[in-house]
Amino acid sequence: MYMTTPALHTIIKLPEPTLHRLPWYLAYVKIMQAQGVEHISSTQIAKAINVDASQIAKDLSFVNISGKTRVGYEVNTLVNVLEHFLGFNSQHKAIVYGVGRLGAALMHDSGLAQYGLEIVAGFDVRAMKQNNINGIPLYSVNEFSKKREELDAQIGILTVPVEKAQECADYMIANGIKAIWNFTPYRLQAPKHIVIQDTSIYAHLAVMFNRLNNIRGEEEK
Amino acid sequence: MYMTTPALHTIIKLPEPTLHRLPWYLAYVKIMQAQGVEHISSTQIAKAINVDASQIAKDLSFVNISGKTRVGYEVNTLVNVLEHFLGFNSQHKAIVYGVGRLGAALMHDSGLAQYGLEIVAGFDVRAMKQNNINGIPLYSVNEFSKKREELDAQIGILTVPVEKAQECADYMIANGIKAIWNFTPYRLQAPKHIVIQDTSIYAHLAVMFNRLNNIRGEEEK
Repeated sequence: MYMTTPALHTIIKLPEPTLHRLPWYLAYVKIMQAQGVEHISSTQIAKAINVDASQIAKDLSFVNISGKTRVGYEVNTLVNVLEHFLGFNSQHKAIVYGVGRLGAALMHDSGLAQYGLEIVAGFDVRAMKQNNINGIPLYSVNEFSKKREELDAQIGILTVPVEKAQECADYMIANGIKAIWNFTPYRLQAPKHIVIQDTSIYAHLAVMFNRLNNIRGEEEK
Repeated sequence: MYMTTPALHTIIKLPEPTLHRLPWYLAYVKIMQAQGVEHISSTQIAKAINVDASQIAKDLSFVNISGKTRVGYEVNTLVNVLEHFLGFNSQHKAIVYGVGRLGAALMHDSGLAQYGLEIVAGFDVRAMKQNNINGIPLYSVNEFSKKREELDAQIGILTVPVEKAQECADYMIANGIKAIWNFTPYRLQAPKHIVIQDTSIYAHLAVMFNRLNNIRGEEEK
């Protein structure tokens, strides 16, 4: 079995590329688990997801798990350790700030809870027709300070129009938010002790269009 | 004025970090444009979005625009050049494959069209109650091959359950899709000439949790 210390993932600082790859391993190993596979080697994972086997072994060494020669990793243990390590099996309370299409979609996405994110409230500057989405209460931003404290949410999901991004981020931080999951394409400024996680889907679009056009360009040569 | 060649962004291959930063510049410069600002320097952009001014000047040199000493870049030109370069002002036809919560939310997101992505159809393996979402037609995956060709869509947005990801990607590629925008945490395998753009929001969650826990750990020391 693996070592469990309650604060395991609070202590170890991982390289960010490793943190980006671990969910790929987890996703694949969970599929194998559902198929009843009991052991899996880094070579098998490597073949399935197209990452170098030595890279996988190195990444997994960070999470305090080691495979057995010829047998590989025990699948159930690997799933548990990765979920624990990535923070997916403890709930992190979050609020949605800006309940437009995207904000509302996130409040509907029950997948997030499986990955450790519990959305406990939504806030918007506009008057809203309903008082909840998917059972999650909606409030006016005027109630933000009070409700955030009551709910003890540390994560703010920022889904406002881009021109309001910095102002709303500042407001959340001033009222106790410690981490911002930023879905706007705006590059936020924040104090050092605040975590900013950018997920700008539009930036990904630009990268995709550029690659697609490069491939077309090469084919036309 | 700047040089426009119709296929400008098909020719130049940009470093990916530059491609990720350009949308930040665009987002900020558009806000300034809306406020009536006519000229802007890389130093001003740098200050606002916390990226080194020399980095900004270097990134912008890739897109064939140069600022004037003491005056900076012309804001309208900069917006046009960046949008053109990023592919945001030409429409790229896409289909959604897997019309669950996330797929449906993307079909509702009118923001995507502003960034050059036109969703022309949704496909699902399940029988659907409605025949469109937001005016965009829904079809059974059985009709994929025929409809994809009729619609001439080259981009497939993959929003299926993770265990179906590879199988559905293979199917789309076999039926003419050239680029896959992958919202699952699965690491897809695909031929070299196919573009895979990963936007795994769950991987971003893991990175955010880890950073948040590291900060907490440091504060508790």
